Amino acid sequence: MDAIGRKRWAIAEGYIPSESAFSDRALVSHETACILNAGDNDAQVRITIFFANREPVGPYRVRVQARRTLHLRFNDLDDPQPIPRDADYASVFESDVPIIVQHTRLDSRRAEIALLSTMAYAEA
Amino acid sequence: MDAIGRKRWAIAEGYIPSESAFSDRALVSHETACILNAGDNDAQVRITIFFANREPVGPYRVRVQARRTLHLRFNDLDDPQPIPRDADYASVFESDVPIIVQHTRLDSRRAEIALLSTMAYAEA
Amino acid sequence: MDAIGRKRWAIAEGYIPSESAFSDRALVSHETACILNAGDNDAQVRITIFFANREPVGPYRVRVQARRTLHLRFNDLDDPQPIPRDADYASVFESDVPIIVQHTRLDSRRAEIALLSTMAYAEA
Amino acid sequence: MDAIGRKRWAIAEGYIPSESAFSDRALVSHETACILNAGDNDAQVRITIFFANREPVGPYRVRVQARRTLHLRFNDLDDPQPIPRDADYASVFESDVPIIVQHTRLDSRRAEIALLSTMAYAEA
Repeated sequence: MDAIGRKRWAIAEGYIPSESAFSDRALVSHETACILNAGDNDAQVRITIFFANREPVGPYRVRVQARRTLHLRFNDLDDPQPIPRDADYASVFESDVPIIVQHTRLDSRRAEIALLSTMAYAEA
Repeated sequence: MDAIGRKRWAIAEGYIPSESAFSDRALVSHETACILNAGDNDAQVRITIFFANREPVGPYRVRVQARRTLHLRFNDLDDPQPIPRDADYASVFESDVPIIVQHTRLDSRRAEIALLSTMAYAEA
Repeated sequence: MDAIGRKRWAIAEGYIPSESAFSDRALVSHETACILNAGDNDAQVRITIFFANREPVGPYRVRVQARRTLHLRFNDLDDPQPIPRDADYASVFESDVPIIVQHTRLDSRRAEIALLSTMAYAEA
Repeated sequence: MDAIGRKRWAIAEGYIPSESAFSDRALVSHETACILNAGDNDAQVRITIFFANREPVGPYRVRVQARRTLHLRFNDLDDPQPIPRDADYASVFESDVPIIVQHTRLDSRRAEIALLSTMAYAEA
């Protein structure tokens, strides 16, 4: 398949609630960057996390294999450091090949779940 | 009406929960690709499904008649094979005429429903 | 303010649940096209509604005054005819001046509300 | 990091429910404009709020420091005047440097929360 996507993406919203009404992994409060690499070359992706009151942290490095999707939980990022809970953040993705990035939150602070999703902002 | 839309679309998020608090079709957990063909020629659409850990599957072929909308449930795709539940996937849509693709999930794993929606990523 | 926006917009998703757990207008299940006309000339907007199995209906005509926003409920459209409940539809907006269109559903089929929103697809 | 984003953004949806099932700040019904300034110069942002039946109000002025994100609650805007609750509004953002704007609502009118989010409409 011809490559599809862009190389730079940004998500301005970011907030991982520390609280969850459920303990199983699927329903714990989490934010995800769904990354699709539809092309025939692996993608090396560098993620930078921005905060309200301090310098950005990164790059976090992830590889998305050719013809694969990676639904990356921000909750799981830990190198160079974990993302704090209950704090505002934002993120920028820079890839060496075209990818697509979609942002999702599952919020289970209350007994029922809430969802949000949006395609990220793309450039270049 | 003049044709409106693009020929290639991608959705990076994909996840069909196996669990549902309800059994009627409208409220069973599902993901939908809402496709609009506002033009005067039928659209032949080829869908490719991407996974985290194996090669893509497809094409799934759907036809969207001229001046019609098709709200296609990923749950219903079965040729060449059904989409597994509780698994991460992504999708690319390739049409021979301009269309518009919007992505929606109704999630009823708990007793109340949750919704997400976003316009898909468009190219070409 | 300089005009901002586009003249043609499309929303591929459309579904007004007939059921609502609440009777007050704010919480009845509804879909809305939020239209912003930030410019200095009134916008004449023509809306066409597309269905799964029959010819499109329209145009529905709405005017959005200069420097105003109109949050138009699809539930309220009735000329040339109301939009059926519990049925898939889609919509195209054509304006004579640049506008911005955002799509929202409040779904109160169950005792709690669910929300979705996305910027519509823009062209021209 | 190279600047990423655009200088003009618009959000056509806007509605802050006066009602909330919770009193802590995180769960009170609110709408947020998540702004990311990934560049190396501070952003001076002018926000104009549009209504259904009266002239726009603004500019509201906010500064987003270089390499920072600001998750701005519309609920907190008060100069030149607060945004009325339970009323339709829309917003335009004009920045002197590229930024990214994402729109979010947390709605807690009922006992559970609902969420919506979308990337704003970008221009220039």
